[in-house]
Formats: sequence, structure tokens, C-alpha cells
Amino acid sequence: MYISGIGRTKFGPLPQTLPELAYEAMYRAVDDSDIDITDIDAIFVSNFLGGPLNGQLHLNSIIASLLPGMNVPIAHVETACASSSVAFKQALYALGQLDHVMVVGAEKMTGPGVLGTTEAIAMAADRAIDQLNGLIFPANYALIAQQYMGHYGVGHEVLEQVSFINHRNARLNPLAHFYHKDVTLEAIRRSPVISSPLNLFDCSPVSDGAAAVVLSRVRHGDRDVEVLSSQYMADSTSLTQRSNLTSFNAARLAAKKAYAESGTKPGDIDLVEVHDCFTISELIALEDLGFCAPGKAPLYVSTGRILPDGELPVNTDGGLKADGHPIGATGLAQIYEIVAQLRGEAGARQVAGAAIGMTHNVGGIGGTAAVTILEGSRC
Amino acid sequence: MYISGIGRTKFGPLPQTLPELAYEAMYRAVDDSDIDITDIDAIFVSNFLGGPLNGQLHLNSIIASLLPGMNVPIAHVETACASSSVAFKQALYALGQLDHVMVVGAEKMTGPGVLGTTEAIAMAADRAIDQLNGLIFPANYALIAQQYMGHYGVGHEVLEQVSFINHRNARLNPLAHFYHKDVTLEAIRRSPVISSPLNLFDCSPVSDGAAAVVLSRVRHGDRDVEVLSSQYMADSTSLTQRSNLTSFNAARLAAKKAYAESGTKPGDIDLVEVHDCFTISELIALEDLGFCAPGKAPLYVSTGRILPDGELPVNTDGGLKADGHPIGATGLAQIYEIVAQLRGEAGARQVAGAAIGMTHNVGGIGGTAAVTILEGSRC
Repeated sequence: MYISGIGRTKFGPLPQTLPELAYEAMYRAVDDSDIDITDIDAIFVSNFLGGPLNGQLHLNSIIASLLPGMNVPIAHVETACASSSVAFKQALYALGQLDHVMVVGAEKMTGPGVLGTTEAIAMAADRAIDQLNGLIFPANYALIAQQYMGHYGVGHEVLEQVSFINHRNARLNPLAHFYHKDVTLEAIRRSPVISSPLNLFDCSPVSDGAAAVVLSRVRHGDRDVEVLSSQYMADSTSLTQRSNLTSFNAARLAAKKAYAESGTKPGDIDLVEVHDCFTISELIALEDLGFCAPGKAPLYVSTGRILPDGELPVNTDGGLKADGHPIGATGLAQIYEIVAQLRGEAGARQVAGAAIGMTHNVGGIGGTAAVTILEGSRC
Repeated sequence: MYISGIGRTKFGPLPQTLPELAYEAMYRAVDDSDIDITDIDAIFVSNFLGGPLNGQLHLNSIIASLLPGMNVPIAHVETACASSSVAFKQALYALGQLDHVMVVGAEKMTGPGVLGTTEAIAMAADRAIDQLNGLIFPANYALIAQQYMGHYGVGHEVLEQVSFINHRNARLNPLAHFYHKDVTLEAIRRSPVISSPLNLFDCSPVSDGAAAVVLSRVRHGDRDVEVLSSQYMADSTSLTQRSNLTSFNAARLAAKKAYAESGTKPGDIDLVEVHDCFTISELIALEDLGFCAPGKAPLYVSTGRILPDGELPVNTDGGLKADGHPIGATGLAQIYEIVAQLRGEAGARQVAGAAIGMTHNVGGIGGTAAVTILEGSRC
């Protein structure tokens, strides 16, 4: 199965509404493909906070309203921050019976919401165990960071490097939330504490945005990118139900299945987009995906391997940290970046010779994890 | 593809939480099947209002928390009141690659919610066009009823009959919301206006509940029910975007595809569960599914054809009106009833010789519609 078209909006605080964002991404994805919109057999919509923030559930029907006369099945998938990767997988399942499907992910997080943003995002956590006790997401990831840093004897400096590299990458991505922002290591070091040991620059921003892809059962041309595997896995919601906070079992299992299905191994991956909702997550991702052993990600980062010209370029678009994190669109934005790179169309941030790429998208605190492996047609 | 197990809770105001409801339905479905829970390859979760009412999104991960050690992919699907039928279809798509999947739908609507129930349910309607102008669901369906009754010259009496028949059917269904309530035609006639011409007994209740099914790629035994077809379709959200309010185009298209795929026609259907969120919807459903011509449903009802011993028994479980409407579970509860009937296990409400059954599940005001056709193994 193949990705025939990709589209996305700018990420950041935007004037558009949720449906307008989705429309723009879909338009661009169809325009980018050589497939007519009337040949799309089904659409899968990803969105996390439409209810609590925008007062809009049933987004599949809203998408139908944007496409009068289309008359296709449209479904809405929600799995917190991994929503769009899981929607992507449902589209692949459907491609077993259909020829062309579109997946669109959108999120409108800035501006007045029905509820507050922090309260809304917290709905990805267990209501009874965590939410009602005030354990919001930065605090969850701070607990993880505390355990990781304590267990492996790691200081905050490596998290600062992760943040710095993501922000520098975003300076080459005109669609990134922080494209225009020159972030220095000094500014990162001086940023205020959010939830110790995580500071402001350890946290991904609140962004608006949308991304979409058109998928085809058969190859259409040289710009098509093949989906070698796409796997997702669910795990318990609360950290209180985990024996180890320094790794996400769902991500490990999804990666294992994706490597097995695609016949690849970590050494075959030329570049990867990982779910750096907080800087600590990027370290854990590198280990969960098998790029380095447990506890070795700090060394991997500090020796420059994740740089754009390193052994394994990571988050060339700036990642969630600096490209932005419009939740329902994030997994598809990762796929957008890998497809652009594998096509050789990534412009100033092109990774030379990229043939196989991977995305890693996490929901909640590892309650859902999705791993996708893609291969370009150029090799 | 086959339904190997079914389970559901009682519907109505219940003491259980949302996860507890889901767990009970899953337990019963697995228990009813001859499949071990460790053989389930993936789970699909349907829920509509977990965010706005229960403060709980990311329900797929909550389900994983209920099943420690399962380690399977779990996805959450939301398409308003059609959520569980659309989740059911995603499960069928996945069965192209998997052996056994479970679908569970749950909704917790009573008790204190993050937001009010009316405000939450309204999120299935277009925020910009309808919600913010106060067009809540009873008002939407009242507009439909006004147009239908005016156009075809129909009085309120036929709606009363629909309500009466559904309530009488529910008296044979111990799990129904209104199992214990003896509702007379007199009580229905005297019920207060909600949104003219719809009175209290024209409206389905606010219910808690859950339902689940286990699906298998191959037949396991004589109790298995075959899925001949399951189709869904999306349409515009707001009535302002429709040229005709007396029919739902999405339902017509889904039914057309389901008949075509299954090789059946309306005359082949032995019984049907239709989405009577309001009594007027039942009339429209009978026409959209091809059981009678436009405008002829009132005659179809008044001549007794939809009675349990009629030509086409409709909503033998009491329908949304009297079995209840825990939104995320409703489509699966319809499937539960048809499976029970096709197996000959429907007890006091068993329809003699039922071989082929159908479900019709609608989201919003026809913004999503799903039609499923099932066949028993006894024939």
C-alpha cells in the first residue's frame, strides 16, 4: 500500500476553525497526488479535543459537509495524541477492500474553548486515578523524567540538547510552529520550571494545525511511498499501573511488530520522527525503537547521531517540540515529513539518500503507541 | 465473517462507571463465544460522550487497563449515535488480516457530567450553524416531523403507535431501560410537549449501558451469525444543508450498498432494528430501508406489519425508545438483538423462523448512517 499524496497546514496559533484546517490539509493532499477527489472511496478523520475544546464531535459528518456530493464512508478515530496514526492504520485495513482512501487529522487548540486546554488534554489520562488527583500531563512526564534521570544518572543538559536540536531543525521548516524563532541553548537553560525537572523548553507547544494523506492500494508513480508496516498497540493508562516508567511497552511492542512485518531492523532506518511531546520522551523513544540500549539515549544524543547529518536524523521537521503538536494531526505530520524526505522533496532539510523512514507516535503516557515504516521509490 | 459472541448490560440509569459498563459487556460477549480472550487480536471501542460527560477520552487505553497483559491494538471510534456500528465496520476491515476481534460500545450518560447532557449531545450537530443557535436534537427532529407530517398529511397518532409498540416490545426484554414500565396509549397521548410536534414519549431516554460482540474470520459453530454486509455513509451535518428533511440520504445509500453486497432485497429481511431516537425516525427508517415507499410508513405501521407477529417485526427489543439509547452502545445493542433472534435465543420475544435480520443506526440528524445485514446458521 502506498502514500500517493500529502498535505498539511502551517502549525501554530492560527485564525482558521477546525473544519477550515481539515479542509486545507485535505485539499493539499489531493492536489499533491495524481488522484482525483472523486476517486477517494473513504475518509478517516483523526481529532482528539473537538468535543471538550471546540464543542464539535461527529467530525466525520462535518468533513462530509465540506465535501458536498462526495457520499463516501467517513469515520472519526480518537486515541489521544496517537489519533492520526491509529486512523492511518484503519485506512490501511480498509484499503484491503478499497482503492483509494484519505486520512485527515486536525486540531484547533488555541482560542476560547468550551473547557480549558489543560483540563481538556488531561482527558487522555485515567479520570478516576490521575485526573481528579491533579496529575496533569507535564507532571506525568516529570515523574518519568525523574525516574529516568535518577536511574541512569543523567543531568538536564541532554534534555536541553534535545530541545535545541528540535528548534534548530524547525528553522528549516517554514510550516513549523517555531520556524521564525531563533532559540539559543542559553534561552533553553534559563527557561522557567513547568514541573521539575521539566522546564518550558522541555514541553511541546499548544498548536493548531492539520495534515492529510491520500493512500492507494497500488503504486501510481515514482513519488509514491510504500507503507512497509504500520502497527499500534494499547497499554494501561496510568503510570500507577506500570512497573517501569523509563520505557513504554506499547511502543516497544508496536516497533517489534513493525520491524517484523517490514523485514527491517533499526540499522535499516535512515531517519525517524519520534513523539517528543516532552524532551524526555525523545530519549525513551530512541531506546524503545531499538536505536540504542536502555539508558544509552543520552550518549546517542550527545555524540551527535540524531543531527540532520548524523547517523540517524531525528525530527528533521522540528518534532512536536518545535514543529508543533496539534494533537489530532501530529502522527500524520510525522508521516508527511518522512514522505517528503523519501521523495527527496524536503528542501533545505533534505537528508541525503533517505530510503527508509519511520514514525513513532504516542498517546497519553504510552497508553497508545504507533510505529510506521515507510520506503521511498527512488532506491 | 461471523459474530461468535454477544454481550450487553442492562440499559437505564445504572450505578456503574463507563469502564465498568464496558468490562461487563466484554466479559459477557467473550463468555458467550467459544473463543478465549487471549485469542482476541484487536479491540475496537465505541463511545460518543466520554469527553464532554465523563472527562474521559483515550478510552482505548482505559480498556487496555481493564485487560492487563492483553497487549493488543485497541482503537476508539466516534461517529455520534452511529459510533458502534462504524466501529463494527472497522473491526470487519481489520478481520481481513486478523482472526478474532472484539467490538465494545459503552456510554455513561446519567449522573453528574463535566458538561450538561443536552449541551454534550448537541456536539453531534454543527457547532457554527446549529449548536450556537440553540438547535438541539429534539428541535432538529421536530423540524423533520413537521415537514414529514405536513408533506404527507399525517397526524400524531401514528407516532403514538410507534412509541406504544416499542414500549410493549420492551416489556419482553428484561435488559431494556423500560422493561418494568407498563406504558399505555393514554399515557403516551397525554405526555407533555418537548418540541412540537414531538412529545415526551416521542423521545428516546437518556440511558447508561454497554454492548459487545466477538467477531471471527471463519465460522466456529452453529450459533455463529454471518455478517452478510455492513455499510456506513456520511452526509452533511446540518438540516440547513439538506434539500429534503423526510429522508436520510446516508441511510438510503448505506442500505443500497448493503443490499447489493449481500445479494438481498427488502423482502428477504425477516426482522429489523431501526434507529428510533425519535418516533418520527422510525417512519423514515422504514422508507429509507426500502420496506415501503416514501410517505407510506404510517400505513405500514397502522396496519400492524411491524408488530412482533407481523410481516416485518421492528425493534423487538424495544428500540431506542424503550430498550434505551446509551449512545456509544446502541448500534451493537441492535446487532445483539438480531443475533439473539437469528440464533433462536430471544426467549419470550423470539420471532419464529427468523433467518435474515438487519440493523439501521443513525448519527446526528443523518450525518452518519450504518446498515448491517446478518444471517443465522439455522436455515
